[in-house]
Amino acid sequence: MSANRLIYLPLGGAGEIGMNCFVYGYGPEDRERLIVVDLGVTFGDMGSTPGVDLIMPDVAWLEERAERIEAIFITHAHEDHIGALGHLWPKLRKRVYARKFTAAIGRLKFEEQGHPQDVIHTVEARPAVIEAGPFRVQFVPLAHSIPESSALIIDTPAGRVLHSGDFKLDPTPVVGEAWDEALFREIAAEAPVKALMCDSTNVFSPLPGRSEASLADPVRELIASAGGLVVATTFASNVARLKTLAEAGRAAGRSVCLLGRAMQRMVKVAGETGVLTGFPPVIPSEQAAEVSRQNLMLIVTGSQGERRAATAQLSRGKYLGLELKEGDLFLFSSKTIPGNEREVLRIMNAFSEMGVDVVDDTGGRYHVSGHANRPDLELMHEIIRPKMLVPMHGEHRHLREHVRLGQTRGIAGEVASNGMMLDLTDEVPVIAEYIESGRLYLDGSVLIGATDGVIRDRIRMALNGHVMVNVILDEADDPLGEAWVEIMGLPEAGKRGRGLAEVMEGELTRFLESAPAKVMRDDDKLDEALRRLVRQAAVEEIGRKPEVTVVVSRLAEG
Amino acid sequence: MSANRLIYLPLGGAGEIGMNCFVYGYGPEDRERLIVVDLGVTFGDMGSTPGVDLIMPDVAWLEERAERIEAIFITHAHEDHIGALGHLWPKLRKRVYARKFTAAIGRLKFEEQGHPQDVIHTVEARPAVIEAGPFRVQFVPLAHSIPESSALIIDTPAGRVLHSGDFKLDPTPVVGEAWDEALFREIAAEAPVKALMCDSTNVFSPLPGRSEASLADPVRELIASAGGLVVATTFASNVARLKTLAEAGRAAGRSVCLLGRAMQRMVKVAGETGVLTGFPPVIPSEQAAEVSRQNLMLIVTGSQGERRAATAQLSRGKYLGLELKEGDLFLFSSKTIPGNEREVLRIMNAFSEMGVDVVDDTGGRYHVSGHANRPDLELMHEIIRPKMLVPMHGEHRHLREHVRLGQTRGIAGEVASNGMMLDLTDEVPVIAEYIESGRLYLDGSVLIGATDGVIRDRIRMALNGHVMVNVILDEADDPLGEAWVEIMGLPEAGKRGRGLAEVMEGELTRFLESAPAKVMRDDDKLDEALRRLVRQAAVEEIGRKPEVTVVVSRLAEG
Repeated sequence: MSANRLIYLPLGGAGEIGMNCFVYGYGPEDRERLIVVDLGVTFGDMGSTPGVDLIMPDVAWLEERAERIEAIFITHAHEDHIGALGHLWPKLRKRVYARKFTAAIGRLKFEEQGHPQDVIHTVEARPAVIEAGPFRVQFVPLAHSIPESSALIIDTPAGRVLHSGDFKLDPTPVVGEAWDEALFREIAAEAPVKALMCDSTNVFSPLPGRSEASLADPVRELIASAGGLVVATTFASNVARLKTLAEAGRAAGRSVCLLGRAMQRMVKVAGETGVLTGFPPVIPSEQAAEVSRQNLMLIVTGSQGERRAATAQLSRGKYLGLELKEGDLFLFSSKTIPGNEREVLRIMNAFSEMGVDVVDDTGGRYHVSGHANRPDLELMHEIIRPKMLVPMHGEHRHLREHVRLGQTRGIAGEVASNGMMLDLTDEVPVIAEYIESGRLYLDGSVLIGATDGVIRDRIRMALNGHVMVNVILDEADDPLGEAWVEIMGLPEAGKRGRGLAEVMEGELTRFLESAPAKVMRDDDKLDEALRRLVRQAAVEEIGRKPEVTVVVSRLAEG
Repeated sequence: MSANRLIYLPLGGAGEIGMNCFVYGYGPEDRERLIVVDLGVTFGDMGSTPGVDLIMPDVAWLEERAERIEAIFITHAHEDHIGALGHLWPKLRKRVYARKFTAAIGRLKFEEQGHPQDVIHTVEARPAVIEAGPFRVQFVPLAHSIPESSALIIDTPAGRVLHSGDFKLDPTPVVGEAWDEALFREIAAEAPVKALMCDSTNVFSPLPGRSEASLADPVRELIASAGGLVVATTFASNVARLKTLAEAGRAAGRSVCLLGRAMQRMVKVAGETGVLTGFPPVIPSEQAAEVSRQNLMLIVTGSQGERRAATAQLSRGKYLGLELKEGDLFLFSSKTIPGNEREVLRIMNAFSEMGVDVVDDTGGRYHVSGHANRPDLELMHEIIRPKMLVPMHGEHRHLREHVRLGQTRGIAGEVASNGMMLDLTDEVPVIAEYIESGRLYLDGSVLIGATDGVIRDRIRMALNGHVMVNVILDEADDPLGEAWVEIMGLPEAGKRGRGLAEVMEGELTRFLESAPAKVMRDDDKLDEALRRLVRQAAVEEIGRKPEVTVVVSRLAEG
């Protein structure tokens, strides 16, 4: 019988920022009992995943070992931590643990998906302990940009692991629990921490992080100085920011209205679960248009330029009876996530064309990050004094830099990206195995694998256009009528002005009239020959090689 | 007879950063003689222009008035100012004026396109004057991030216009002409400047711009401290930066090698035209692999993550026998242009996975902008004291802010974005007309209009997938054989596990068996009915509505 071991396996969120999913295991090799921490999504883009609605970790490895999974823990309610829960839970079907607000968000997702809501268990923060096989887990409150973000203490027979979740060292987070240094010193003193799995997002930010509370004055001053309609956008789940913004609006004598379903839902759930108190009164969106613009403030979704969110809608013109104009103010109380710049700039310029004054995060007056900066990470290392540091929640460059940062303090570290299983049993992390990890795409209502070729074909059609060839052959394998070509996503005429489809049809017809019988009889050979002709014609006429679909109908077979 | 007027019409580059093209006219309304300043391109992206090679201004308005065009002036050799010259010149066929280096770059483009190179005339800087109808034009040297960038003095019977081109106030630009304040004071003193058309790129940058020369020390120190292979990337046309980088490499005892055709060409032309002197010796790329890595420095193309450039190639593995590894240094001496973040970050992380230390522009130690910052623009306003300020080279928000900045000094300004013709004859700019302006796409070898629908169809296929339906009808309009469906870019099976194409074929066949004769006879009705069936089936099986192409073959018609 083999010895017990403690393993760690990121299936998402390590080597990328998004779709967090981490597995811990304890037991004999290949018989470890497992827990899952977070099931998040990431968002696609037109360049690499056109049409894809959501991206999530491929949990095939877990699915095959479902009987060994003790439980699923969700650290907080950001989509990159909880967004895949409703989609992937049917593959795992295990008990889910989360704190009150997070659990409420999770149950709304389960309600939408038709899953049993009672598998999501609400748990209290430390000192409450959840027993899950060999694991004893405690939720430890930490400040972040959403209420109730929690680190997890994971006590195992091999020692204590601290899984940081997403955090910042904010003593005055406006909403939710403050950074409590004494608590973390107590945790480290109580039992030596074998391994710290740690948020790495801001490892390249050299200055200490700033508190959410530091925004109140600048935001209040900005809004007090505004003459027209004021609109502000931020992340829907940042209810502390929403409160700061709404209070500034009220202080300026404005009626406040929240626009966007995600934002309304977050505020509602945060209120119902008691994590958000004292939120200023808001008016329903139907009433907003009746308030004079100098007395109105809208707080809206869509800070990342999402096409269907309120910000983008307002940039295109009238939305819910509201329309921006000369002298209005639009505040982006947010940062633009890399990859969203084009859309956000497009929107800012659309507002500029309306005469709206756009204020963004330049200078950092109106936004603070929800993640610990480099000096904050160093303080966390110092407080926790872990034997090992395994960075997570970061691109590869973040993880690598974070390992280095730990090494300056003599902490053994390892860059473990998605699919790299670490054995944490001994004094230093050891790479145990490479798991085939991957991504699933939610595409419409279907989950498809990232490597299924579906998206590859879409990208090819987008880059190259698509030509469809139709040929009908009679019983003697002779063409019945002429070849028919339909083109989509290609110029109608080539550089010499000739119709592209007509040129192709001419080439195909000429070929079919004189093609050898052995080609005409053979579906594959004929397909290949027609495809080649079409591509050659396209290269000559328009200088590009399109995707080609050939359909040969043989009436004899009908 | 109507009075003469002076007009300004941006066809590109106003309300966007890229594809600069500005028209000036003087004469009676609708009979003005015209000059064109710059013919640039902009680059597409997968999100909005998949497959498009280059984007350029639609010059239909100019083409219709070609007989009124006196000449084309090119201010400098950046692609967003000269890149469309070779593609659009055949529509205009007018004499082109540029300074020596710019003209040499232009002639290379004409050589590739097979245009007559002698229509590009090399001109000297002020005091040389080019007479072009009612216009007297002088090229005025200015510092920028490419040699020989020039402002244009455009003297007209209605007064003097100063067209700034792209510039910064750099007294020590390393290569090319320095900022010469006295010269610009002289220009303003010589004749009052009626209108300043001014670069607006950095109007939101609050601090004075930094000199190219300020990078020498940090770059030298960084490279001196490196132990392994050193690779640096920057914009190929920034020959001053290339020189700074190469000198730092040589100072560290390294052989320097330039990788990338665009970069080699720029250095060659800059040397041949005498604008670049004292460039350190470089070794050919074939020799690079033979030099030990601690003695080698590569300067490479691809700072924006371009797929086929050297940086991206190196991030994917071996390239020209060279391969990066643990302990190497990669310097991005560049900023990432908005929209390119994803690709650049992907590359940085690929290098991180190889163990390469990536240094970027964070902190501004290794890159300076080529454009005038806000205080520099203010100094320019003060020196030139124009009656009117018309901002250009900026997104709408830049133009708007720049007008405001001028207004603080009492200068009349107007935001003129692409297609807005201004009348500059009197004391303030007056909007004269809105011209239908647009974009042309170079797509393979064909120029297509942005609104032709070609790209719209590509985007639709990328977002929705594509279904092709084939039906053959006999002479009695009865189906011959069953309906045939091909799918591309869609999941093969729906959420219930049934084959998508099979489900669709079943629905279609059932419909065709019982469809009324009047539908079967009518191509449009039949097409519409089949399309609707396919979309319904797709919504049910996979939750999305694909693009559908229906081909009905009627044998009776054959």
